[in-house]
Amino acid sequence: MDSPDMDTCRKSLELQQVQVEIEKNSSLQQDNNIVRSQWVLNAPEPPSPWRVVADSVGKSFSQCRERFSSLRDQPCYTLLLSLLQGIFPILGWGRNYTVAKFRNDFLAGLTIASLCIPQSIGYATLAHLDPQYGLYTSVVPPLIYAVMGTSREIAIGPVAVVSLLLSSMVQKLVDPTTDPLGYTKLILLATLFAGIFQTAFGLFRLGFLVDFLSHAAIVGFVAGAAIVIGLQQLKGLLGITHFTTKTDIISVMKAVWESFHDPWNPRNFILGCSFLVFILTTRILGKKKKKLFWLASISPLVSVIVSTLAVFLTRADKNGVKIVKHVKGGLNPSSIHLLDFNNPYVGDVAKIGLVVAVVALTESVAVGRSFASIKGYQLDGNKEMVSIGFTNVIGSFTSCYVATGSFSRTAVNYAAGCETLVSNIVMAITVMISLQFLTKLLYYTPTAIIASVILSALPGLIDINKAYKIWKVDKLDFLACSGAFFGVLFASVEIGLLVAVIISFAKIVIISIRPGTETLGKLPGTDLFCDVYQYPMSVKVPGVVIIRVKSALLCFANANFVRERIIKWVTQEESEGDLKNSRVTIQLIVIDTSNLVNIDTSGIASLEELHKSLSSHGKQLAIANPRWQVIHKLKVSNFIDKIGGRVFLTVEEAVGCKTEC
Amino acid sequence: MDSPDMDTCRKSLELQQVQVEIEKNSSLQQDNNIVRSQWVLNAPEPPSPWRVVADSVGKSFSQCRERFSSLRDQPCYTLLLSLLQGIFPILGWGRNYTVAKFRNDFLAGLTIASLCIPQSIGYATLAHLDPQYGLYTSVVPPLIYAVMGTSREIAIGPVAVVSLLLSSMVQKLVDPTTDPLGYTKLILLATLFAGIFQTAFGLFRLGFLVDFLSHAAIVGFVAGAAIVIGLQQLKGLLGITHFTTKTDIISVMKAVWESFHDPWNPRNFILGCSFLVFILTTRILGKKKKKLFWLASISPLVSVIVSTLAVFLTRADKNGVKIVKHVKGGLNPSSIHLLDFNNPYVGDVAKIGLVVAVVALTESVAVGRSFASIKGYQLDGNKEMVSIGFTNVIGSFTSCYVATGSFSRTAVNYAAGCETLVSNIVMAITVMISLQFLTKLLYYTPTAIIASVILSALPGLIDINKAYKIWKVDKLDFLACSGAFFGVLFASVEIGLLVAVIISFAKIVIISIRPGTETLGKLPGTDLFCDVYQYPMSVKVPGVVIIRVKSALLCFANANFVRERIIKWVTQEESEGDLKNSRVTIQLIVIDTSNLVNIDTSGIASLEELHKSLSSHGKQLAIANPRWQVIHKLKVSNFIDKIGGRVFLTVEEAVGCKTEC
Repeated sequence: MDSPDMDTCRKSLELQQVQVEIEKNSSLQQDNNIVRSQWVLNAPEPPSPWRVVADSVGKSFSQCRERFSSLRDQPCYTLLLSLLQGIFPILGWGRNYTVAKFRNDFLAGLTIASLCIPQSIGYATLAHLDPQYGLYTSVVPPLIYAVMGTSREIAIGPVAVVSLLLSSMVQKLVDPTTDPLGYTKLILLATLFAGIFQTAFGLFRLGFLVDFLSHAAIVGFVAGAAIVIGLQQLKGLLGITHFTTKTDIISVMKAVWESFHDPWNPRNFILGCSFLVFILTTRILGKKKKKLFWLASISPLVSVIVSTLAVFLTRADKNGVKIVKHVKGGLNPSSIHLLDFNNPYVGDVAKIGLVVAVVALTESVAVGRSFASIKGYQLDGNKEMVSIGFTNVIGSFTSCYVATGSFSRTAVNYAAGCETLVSNIVMAITVMISLQFLTKLLYYTPTAIIASVILSALPGLIDINKAYKIWKVDKLDFLACSGAFFGVLFASVEIGLLVAVIISFAKIVIISIRPGTETLGKLPGTDLFCDVYQYPMSVKVPGVVIIRVKSALLCFANANFVRERIIKWVTQEESEGDLKNSRVTIQLIVIDTSNLVNIDTSGIASLEELHKSLSSHGKQLAIANPRWQVIHKLKVSNFIDKIGGRVFLTVEEAVGCKTEC
Repeated sequence: MDSPDMDTCRKSLELQQVQVEIEKNSSLQQDNNIVRSQWVLNAPEPPSPWRVVADSVGKSFSQCRERFSSLRDQPCYTLLLSLLQGIFPILGWGRNYTVAKFRNDFLAGLTIASLCIPQSIGYATLAHLDPQYGLYTSVVPPLIYAVMGTSREIAIGPVAVVSLLLSSMVQKLVDPTTDPLGYTKLILLATLFAGIFQTAFGLFRLGFLVDFLSHAAIVGFVAGAAIVIGLQQLKGLLGITHFTTKTDIISVMKAVWESFHDPWNPRNFILGCSFLVFILTTRILGKKKKKLFWLASISPLVSVIVSTLAVFLTRADKNGVKIVKHVKGGLNPSSIHLLDFNNPYVGDVAKIGLVVAVVALTESVAVGRSFASIKGYQLDGNKEMVSIGFTNVIGSFTSCYVATGSFSRTAVNYAAGCETLVSNIVMAITVMISLQFLTKLLYYTPTAIIASVILSALPGLIDINKAYKIWKVDKLDFLACSGAFFGVLFASVEIGLLVAVIISFAKIVIISIRPGTETLGKLPGTDLFCDVYQYPMSVKVPGVVIIRVKSALLCFANANFVRERIIKWVTQEESEGDLKNSRVTIQLIVIDTSNLVNIDTSGIASLEELHKSLSSHGKQLAIANPRWQVIHKLKVSNFIDKIGGRVFLTVEEAVGCKTEC
């Protein structure tokens, strides 16, 4: 094979081939470049904003029509069933419901009911309502949600954060101690408004409103709220009679400090703490050994029963142990007559309803989504909002205050092995039975035990690990997180929310109006051009500055800034060359617009100014890889002609045009 | 050469070579891919936000120190000179000033002075001030700016839009007809505040505030203001005595309509219109023949002189022709005693000062920039702001109201061949001489002529061509433009400004919270993947969905939306395959993150959820071309490990991993 003859033949052939290839390549390359530039320049016209909106509306419409026409051929009752099934998903999954599933749901339902009863009483107290309102809210809303909801794990009922938010906002209008009926009326009205807003959000597909609270803000907000809720429990735990209505840490600590000056009874504290230790111990045991999970689940109920019995037997209430006393028995009464729209505060209550609607939905959607993604199904956010909203509207007619998906009970529901929303129905019926027959037994329940049940749920809400992760990943997000945390802690719940939203949006606006710029170099062995700092192995092309703007928009708010930056980069490159005693003249500036999604007339005007001032110094401007909207607008505004058509598909090709210039 | 022997030899060799190459290539390709993935993963850590801020501060500091240390070796007086030259650029360019330059500047100065005198009187009337205040404002500000400014063409003085804005805002506080002195005091105070704000913007480098008015909004705003100013001139042109103080078109037309009911004198109208026709004719002539440019420039002054003489000789003022009457002669008096900070309106006036400061700077910077880019030099925006601000502060001490760069006079200055700011000095001295000696001659000048001089400048402000271009290029920009236009026309100047700013910012926020997504296909003959709609020749890869998000941020406001969109794309691809009766299972989803500049914890959480729900359906997720911040954050949050390290430098390589999956 390797005879000298063959060798010469091969070498001469190889040389010949290489030469031909080079020639072919370079002419091909040039042809290719021209063809590709034409691809860029002759792209079809992008749809106008009106077209986009019209298309989107048309699509929804045609989807509806398609669905309707596919149903039209079917008999009338199928059509009705399909419609009903859309509104009440239970009609769908209910038909495949089995006894095995019911056994699991039944056990899960009893488990969450045992947690739900003491929590409901505690949260109602947190909302400055009578205890039975908490229990009412655990009856009707779970039943409504069970037939309308799309999640399979959510446990509906009163939740801590919403109770706190409601009471802290409504008590500014009416004092709950002097006018409890007026206060209750406003709470019910706020519930109605919250329900109406939530339904409207779902119907008008305004789900994005829930996204305005960023992940980081929620972590900070929930942690702050947990501490505030914990501080509120000091009233029950210490058996304090005169407590502050404010929620910030300073007012509460002052009230606690002042309470020590009165002769105080340590029995409440000892009772509460010992059961808190019991509940927390069973929880730790339950986490370590999965088999003992049931112990953790029923320990709150066990604590309530044991402590109630103990107080009843020892008559400890006569020795200063505070008890729940009268809980009104019987099922939810109608509350339609309490909804008074002629109230002077109706406007304020509507605003409160809006804030509460968003916060409640945020919690519920976040809870629903996280469990749905574990089980691998998709939650329809808009449908969820309609269900929760409808739940609250009906709730406001039946003496319930704002209900939503509870994080702690949903987690217990999932861990107890629930299969469908039937567990919610089981829970509601259990609470219903308790309301009908067991409220008298709750008379001797010490308030310290209710406080300790609530306190035991709080550590799960303060997620230091997550906060640390946020700090590690994104410092600005951590700022929003701690802003929400300290806002809730030191000012009020609403201010905490406001701080978080403002910091989050300020971030978006700042990044839009002050985008970074980066210079690109060629990655060795490739045609790719990347940020020279991100890829230190990349090599700058002499005589060419390649710049990319770190923004999706070149618009009025950043166009001049970007223009000035680009000119700075060019002068900097030239002066760096001067320092190295090698005079470099930049002949070509390539703007890599690959991440520029859109440009407006201010952006184009600023590019034109840039071109003018560069060409007055004998420098050329080229555009690489413009996106659809950008190339269209540059074409329409004649900018392409002004820069001599130097538009290329890749940076590589744009740099290649230097020799031609 | 092409003997049969050679041919066989070549063929066998070629085959051999091709085989070797293929083997080498595929193993090389794999090695390369691994190396490149390592490049992506092992990028150096990006600077933290604190580092970026600290670096930027440090850089400015070290620049200062460098400049200082380079000066330290030089004698003391050079240092002082350099410092002074920084503040007063005239000391720099003044040393190269020649007689030839002076000749050009002198002629340009006289030209703008001839336009300036009638305009100043008219603008002062527009601002509801006595005529001499307009002339005062054409004396001191140009002199100050001439020694401090960095532009070479700007002509400083009172301008129409600012006069209108000032009067429309200040007359809400004090009525200029009943309390002219109190009104003048407030105007001077507003001027001082505007100057202070402008200086502060420059010193604290807040130049971006000027960018908040987008190019499109300015076009609409100026056009609306021009019409409003034109309507105000109807008072002078028709000789109306009782006129409205409101500026919107409906109030003005009503006032004009009512004036026709009184017996009215058409002489004013005929006089004004005939001179307006004269001025416009000379302007059209001047545009057609460059040699007749001087005719257009002096026609306003000629009109004033001719009409004044005519009225004086015929005593037409006794026959109902309204005249300017008394203009107080003498140079600018001090107005420090008029600046009253104990005024009850001082807070409102400060707000007015802020608005006026921004609008005045917007006009001046826009004018300066456009002429600087024609002449090919760079304007320092921050330095400009300090100069204009200082000009107004001094102006408020010397009976001047807010001055800024005038568009019409700057254009005339440039066309008249000015070389430096000396033309401003010439103009100021000319106006000074007029104030001292010629005010008595202005007594008989008809107000209709002043109105026609102002009216003749307005057509240049209504730029229908530009508005049409904006409509063609960007429909949303046009919305901002027409919002500003109609806001000014039908409501008030401030509301027009507000509408424009709100529409402009709403655009940025909407694009951030509702970004588009696009699927990519491979461009034939390249390794590139592009939007399949932009490049219809691109080919989709079967079994793979490649998605790019049209946003620079994946953050709390859009993360859930994007996640839902991506899942929609995947199901859509699969159902499209079903329609074609060819069952396609998507195995791999590639997210091209090349235009994603940053991501926050909500974005990462949503990617994690996406990964979970995709992998529960047996689909894989891969990331292509992540930017610096994005790859860093994905690494820190362990997301890379969760998706099995499927991070690639290019989409091509990411698609290649499908076979491995």
